[in-house]
This record gives sequence, structure tokens and C-alpha cells, in this order.
Amino acid sequence: MSKVDLLGRRNFIKGLGAASVAMATPALASSVSANEVKWDETVEIAIIGSGFAGLAAGIEATRKGCKSVTIFEKMPVFGGNSAINGGLFAAPGTPMQKKEGVDDSVERMVSDQLKSGRGIADEELLRHVASHANEALQLTMDAGAEFHPYLQQLGGHSVPRTYQTTVSCGAGITQPLLKECRKLGVGTVSRAKFEGFVLDDNGKVVGAKIRTGYYFGEEGKGKLIYVKATRGVIMATGGFGQNIDLRMAQDPTLTAEVGCTNAKGATGEGMFEMFRLGAIPVHLAHIQSGPWASPDEGGFGYVSNYSIFNFPHSIAINRMTGKRFMNEIADRKTRADAELNCRDAQGNPLPPIMITSYEHAKEHPNCKKVLKYNVGWKFDSVEELAKHFDVPLKELKAQIEEYNGYVKSGNDEQFGKNMGKAKGKYIKAPFTVVRLWPKVHYCQGGVQVTKEARVKDSFTGQPIEGLFAAGEVCGGIHGVSRLGSCSIPECMVMGMTAARTIMGA
Amino acid sequence: MSKVDLLGRRNFIKGLGAASVAMATPALASSVSANEVKWDETVEIAIIGSGFAGLAAGIEATRKGCKSVTIFEKMPVFGGNSAINGGLFAAPGTPMQKKEGVDDSVERMVSDQLKSGRGIADEELLRHVASHANEALQLTMDAGAEFHPYLQQLGGHSVPRTYQTTVSCGAGITQPLLKECRKLGVGTVSRAKFEGFVLDDNGKVVGAKIRTGYYFGEEGKGKLIYVKATRGVIMATGGFGQNIDLRMAQDPTLTAEVGCTNAKGATGEGMFEMFRLGAIPVHLAHIQSGPWASPDEGGFGYVSNYSIFNFPHSIAINRMTGKRFMNEIADRKTRADAELNCRDAQGNPLPPIMITSYEHAKEHPNCKKVLKYNVGWKFDSVEELAKHFDVPLKELKAQIEEYNGYVKSGNDEQFGKNMGKAKGKYIKAPFTVVRLWPKVHYCQGGVQVTKEARVKDSFTGQPIEGLFAAGEVCGGIHGVSRLGSCSIPECMVMGMTAARTIMGA
Repeated sequence: MSKVDLLGRRNFIKGLGAASVAMATPALASSVSANEVKWDETVEIAIIGSGFAGLAAGIEATRKGCKSVTIFEKMPVFGGNSAINGGLFAAPGTPMQKKEGVDDSVERMVSDQLKSGRGIADEELLRHVASHANEALQLTMDAGAEFHPYLQQLGGHSVPRTYQTTVSCGAGITQPLLKECRKLGVGTVSRAKFEGFVLDDNGKVVGAKIRTGYYFGEEGKGKLIYVKATRGVIMATGGFGQNIDLRMAQDPTLTAEVGCTNAKGATGEGMFEMFRLGAIPVHLAHIQSGPWASPDEGGFGYVSNYSIFNFPHSIAINRMTGKRFMNEIADRKTRADAELNCRDAQGNPLPPIMITSYEHAKEHPNCKKVLKYNVGWKFDSVEELAKHFDVPLKELKAQIEEYNGYVKSGNDEQFGKNMGKAKGKYIKAPFTVVRLWPKVHYCQGGVQVTKEARVKDSFTGQPIEGLFAAGEVCGGIHGVSRLGSCSIPECMVMGMTAARTIMGA
Repeated sequence: MSKVDLLGRRNFIKGLGAASVAMATPALASSVSANEVKWDETVEIAIIGSGFAGLAAGIEATRKGCKSVTIFEKMPVFGGNSAINGGLFAAPGTPMQKKEGVDDSVERMVSDQLKSGRGIADEELLRHVASHANEALQLTMDAGAEFHPYLQQLGGHSVPRTYQTTVSCGAGITQPLLKECRKLGVGTVSRAKFEGFVLDDNGKVVGAKIRTGYYFGEEGKGKLIYVKATRGVIMATGGFGQNIDLRMAQDPTLTAEVGCTNAKGATGEGMFEMFRLGAIPVHLAHIQSGPWASPDEGGFGYVSNYSIFNFPHSIAINRMTGKRFMNEIADRKTRADAELNCRDAQGNPLPPIMITSYEHAKEHPNCKKVLKYNVGWKFDSVEELAKHFDVPLKELKAQIEEYNGYVKSGNDEQFGKNMGKAKGKYIKAPFTVVRLWPKVHYCQGGVQVTKEARVKDSFTGQPIEGLFAAGEVCGGIHGVSRLGSCSIPECMVMGMTAARTIMGA
């Protein structure tokens, strides 16, 4: 059980002090009636969470005329899990696609995502996000976000359509958005933890219970305030990848020993509070592991972005066989499952290796750090490489030769990899090598939302009034597996959508 | 949107009458504080739902010394969805296995189920159920349930371990259990719909809101009563297969047009009320379709049991190719997915056919009805059969000959089917044929429970006091796909377990 889970309901109640005595509400419900509280603050819109979705909602609401918006962030710093993600942003029909001559469309992006979703993605929501992705990308640029001057083609995408921040992480977007929020007069409060909704007699969400002066993991301290939100509350609280108990409830194999790329605050209590209000849980069982992560470092680390960039012109090798075992740019689930199958004769994990020609690997800014911090290695010959990782030499040599044939022909006869981005990029010495092993990365599940970012009630099927949600806390959009670089556009577009719905614009 | 979903929260509130005025509770919460209600009745244990789990709990609680138990059933008749299921009961180490010389064990049954669960089943719960399955089977026999004098080997089971009631449906168990309940003095009330919990100031479940005189689909009528449960409330309310909106939230392809084998009452509001209380949603995305169903009749029909019985010595044929397309006794998900891939050149569904020698088919009691009601057909020659279903004759003939070779050798080289039950049973004229197409059958998802049948809270990870759950309303036990005939033992054992936990015995 993680630190956070050890606390919770009982502490919630104790922490309420005087208010808990006054409440006739069943103690189990963290939400309270507006009749029972004294408002400490009033805003038009309260936004819970300061990742991509929350920040985009704050900016868009203000632009649409809202005079009073405040973002509440439970952690000491802003940006949430968004700030430490890969900073990868997929959008169709962008200026850079035009420059690079890439033929793309909303329908093509949706079609790629539906495939990865394996039949249960929400096509309407995907189309809504793809249709507004370019506009959201522009919003980040207007706020000052800077991107590499080239597109990447990530796993499962049929064309290159992914921008990446020059700092190769999400902070390259959250920092400019936060600055923009403040410029526009959006309130931003950190160490402010959401602990429940305030409801009127008709069940409409009219405010939020916020614990200010909150230190992560120290429940019940600080000061509880009641914030009235005259237009609505937007939940942008993210996923639950760091909540060990709850992810194990969905998948008993995702124990504390399994790595996780998420920020510590991704514990899911905002989502669970919405379920207590009647929101519909969708696809919680689908938790995605990132197939580009390294077992040699913690969290997202240096390798993840390095390998995402290099997969198109690299080979992934099973160390038992010396052979490739997957299409290196298949969707995330396909690759994570294939990597988890790489095991020694006793069935123990044997992380596969990704081999890249140094001349191409060094084009990624992380290459130096990967080598410096010993989470990747450089070899002058295939013999040296094979010996280091105990890979059968003859088979590995044959595999490299065979793959280089595919680079030449443009046709991967082994796994059907799209060789477009591998053109002319043969695998040859000197090599850089990293080890691969999946890490918990993203929760496809969450509360069900409409394309107006409203949260549906499980009894009525109608939206819960005054409540809106955006980003990873929502579920069902991506289906079984989300494609890489499709989270930022979703968060941004749905955050903007929530603001527009509230402002009627 | 189904009838039931059109009503719900708003009607709940209106329906409360005087009570709703008195409530300081947020209107969204259906559950109420004990301080706000006047008790109409008091029992030691209130059981919600009268399927296998509810009835087993009633009997076991009484046997362990409980003096006052009442089962509340929302429908006009008792037995719930259990009464119309296939009456198939898997257990390891049974008297009939000894008689037939089948080598089986708890571990072997658990191992089969873990495979079907695809890595995310709850091994501890599966072992708990398998360990007590034989005892639960005995309880049904003691109550008067009668079973066929032979075992069946269902898809995904590595040995024959499945009993079936002589009436080939679940009523062969629910009726005797209901009679036993009444004999023991367990109260049974039909047209009594659960509409929420009553909680004390510490959040403990101390009773239930029950609408008596309830007519299915007519919300807010009848009379609302408050039932105090001094020892606890057991939720045995079943799955949500008949709730179109909610199953589509998990899987957009499960529209109203998709068949469903469930009783009309399987709408899931008991489960959703537990989520509102803080129960943890697990695996809702995993909804199982029965691969043995026919598109030529409604619901479970006559064909389902007929084909479950006949699959081991039949061949399933894709009508486009004239070839087999699956192991006829693979697990349900494997088969349902394979059937859904049987399509014509335009991609439209082309339900595959199951071909059985009439001499074997007629051993099943449903065979006559299948033929009488034109949901199955008899043919004197393979030519006649091929013409009727527009199957390529040459390929079909070759396939039958090839398969008969496997019957002889005992080794299915096409799909690795276990040929033990096919021994000596060649495919030859005259034939009977049914069409196959999956129907929504079972919800693997629900609330997370411990092996004491307690319901865990999403914030604390601890059991919610006074609350217990058993049967299909629980989730996570089976993982991605439940094996056939494993639901009755689960329902029975977990119902008995809930009663034992409450009675401390």
C-alpha cells in the first residue's frame, strides 16, 4: 500500500474538525452539501490540477471572458505529471507536415488511433480532439512553447505527425502555459489539495473543498477551505499510475516493483471522488506500459525520449535468440507485450536491447547523457556488443545483415515495420545500445465524458451539473491502448473544450 | 438508452417524498444517514438479489445461527439471471470425477482459469472459490438440485469437471435453494428494489432503502421502506449486461442490436450504488460474449446448451472458406473473437456453422427443440448441407476428412483441440447444424472484494464496514475472460463466504 493509501477516508473525516460535527452527510461521502458550509472564496471556475488540461482550461476560459478562474494544484510545484512527460504532441495538417510534405488528415489520425484502441476507443471523442489538435498546438506556441524543427513518426502512427519540445519534456509546454495563465490573471495555488465537492440541493456541483498548505502524503494537516465556483468545477487531476493498490486492483502484476514514469502525485483521488458522485468508470483495466523505458534508470529517465526518437532506425533484439522480436514502431501495447515475453530459460525477465548506429543515435540530444550516466553503452564492433550482452554472435550478425536488406528495399519482411524514416540508415558500427523494459505510463481508464467535457451520471446517463473533466482523469477515449504523443493534444483540447462549454462559446 | 436508465437519480429524489425534504445529504447521493430515517423493519442480515449468491448466503447464514435474514428481489420472480443460465457447475475432485476416473485438483482448476484470465485474474479469490466448490455443489444437492449423470468438458477446462442440472438451466438450482431458504425461515420478498444504503455517522452500512411493490421500469412508485440490518447488507445484485448505455460505455460495439443472454433485471444499479459509496471498480471493460449462442433465437435460447454439450465432438466452419477457424473448446473470448471475424466479402457478419453428427447431437435433450423451432437443421448429406449454407463443397469435404483423421489420431493438428471427449465420434451424415454468433453474457467487472466477501474502499483500501458482496456484481476474480461453468461455484461460494464472515464462522 502506498503512503497515500494508508491515509484517506478516516483522516478526511478527522481533518474536517468542526465541519464534520455539523455534517448530517454520511461520513463516507467526502462531498458535502452547500447548506453545511461557509464559503471562504468565490471564483467563477475552479480548476483542479495544473497539467496540460488544467492550464489550457484556465487560458481558454479567460480568453472567452471569464473574469475569475483559479487553478488548485496539490503538489508544491505546478505542471503535475505533464511537466515530466516526453513533450510529444501529435496533430494532423500542421505547418511542419506541410513543410516536410507529409500527407495527413484528421481522419487518418483517428484511424491510426482506432486501430491501437482495438475496437473500444471512442471515435467521436478522438475526432473531436484531432479536429482541434492543430489549434491547441498553436495555443502552446503562442504562449511561447518551442519545438524541434523536425517531425517524428511514433509507434502506431502511419505518418510523421509528432512535434516535440526543444527541451524534450512536457515542461517545455507547461511552463509557458503557466506563465500565460498568470499574465491573463488566472489564479494559481500550489499545495492545495482537492478533497471533495460541494453540492446544492439538486446535486449540482457548486464548489470544492480544498486543503491549503498541503504537504504530499501528510493528510489532514493544513487548512480546509470551501471555494464557491459559480460557473463550474473542472477536474484535471490526471491518472492513477502511482497508486499501487489501485493499479494492482486492475492488474495484479503491476506491483511496487514495476517501474512507473509518472509524477508522485498521480494517485487518482480526484477520479475516485467523481465515482462517489456517480460518474461512470470506463476502461480502468487498461493501464499502459511504455515500451521505450529502460530498467537501468528510474521513471521516464533519459532513455525513453532517446529510444522513441531512435526506434524507427534501430533494431530491438531478444538476447536469447539474437533476433528481432517486434516491429520497433508498432503501438505501445504490442511492443510492451513483446518485450515482457523476452525471458531467459528459467522464465526470468531478460530485458531486450535496442541497437542503433552511433552516427544516428548521436543526433538525439539525450545520447550524451545516456552514455554518461551508464544507462546506454557504445561499442566499436558487433563482437564486443554481443559479448557484453551475451547474445549469440552468429545470429545477431545475420539479423543485422537481414535488416539492412530491409533498409535498402524499404520492405521489412520480418515484422512489416514502416521503413520510411529508416531510409539510408543502416545498422553499422560503432553502435549505441540501451536495454528496454516496460514501465507503467498511462491510465486509459477514468470517468466517462461527453465531447463537451461533461461528466455523465451512472443512473441518469445525463451530465452531472456543474462538473467538467479533461485529460488523463477521463477514460474510454483511447480504448485498449493510447498511441504515443496523443495525450498532450487530448489534454489540451479537452481542457479548452471544458472552458468553452462553461463559457457557452 | 434502456428504460431503466431514462429514470434514475431525479426520480429517486422525487420518489423520496417527505424524506427528501428532511435530508441534508447531497441529493446526488442515494444513500442516506441513519439519523434521517425511521426504520420500518429490522433484520440481522439484508440480502439484495435472489440469484445463486443471494440464496446461498441466506441458507448459510441461517445454518450458522442467524435468526433473521431477508432476501429482497426487485423482479416479480425469484432467481434473477441465475435462473435462466445454463445450470453448469464446475468443481474439482467431485464424486462424479472419481467415478469417471478424471484426475483433477483445486490447483488444476485455478491454473485453467488463470490462463483464461490472461494475467489479470485474482489468483487468491479463484483458489478460495475452487477450494470450496465441491462443498457448494453438495449444498445444492442437499437442497434437492438434480444433475445429469455425466460430466462435460467445457471450453478452456483441461479436464471434464462440469456438472449440469437435469433441466439444463440454473432454475434447477435456484428453485431448490429458494425452497430451502423458506424451509429455514429466510424471508423472501419480490418486487422489492434496492435504492441505496443507510449509513451511520462513521460511514458503516447499517441498513438499506427498499422500494416495495416495485414494477420493473416504473421508477418512483410503490412504497419506500427503510430496513435496518444489524449484522450487515450482502449485495448479490448481479451484472449489468442488460444496461445498454453502461455496457456501451465500456465497449461501443455492444449496442442494443447485439444479443444478450441475461435476464432483463441485469441493469447494474446495485454495483453503481456501491461505487457511490467508494467501492473500487475493477475490470468493467471486460464484458464476455458467449460463443455458443445462436443468432436465430433470442437470449440464451435452446442452442446455447446444445452447442456447449456438442462442441467437443463437432466442427465449427467458416462459411466463406469451408474450413475450421478455431479450437471448438478454446476459452470463450478466444472463440467469440474468432466467430466475430467470420464475415462475407463486404465485411458483414456471416455467422459460422457448427456441424455435429446427428447420432451424437441427439444425445442432448435440446436437440429435438433446436430442430422443431428451426434454430437448427438436419441434413442427410454434406452436399445438401453445403448448398443450404452456401459453403464451398470441396473444401468442406476435405475439412471433414481431415478432422476425422484427428478424431482417429487423437491429435488436432489444426488448432490443438483436446480430442479426449471426441474419441470415436467421427463427423458423418446425417448431420445437425446450428449457426453461431456471440451474445453478451457475463460482466467480469464489478466491485473489488476480499476473499472474506468484503468490499474495499478506494481511499482507505480497507473494507467498508457492514457491506458485503458476492457473485457477478464483484469484479476482478476471473480477469479478461471467465471460463464457462465457473460462475455458479463463484456465486455460491462467495455467497456462503459472505454469510460466514458476518456470522464469524
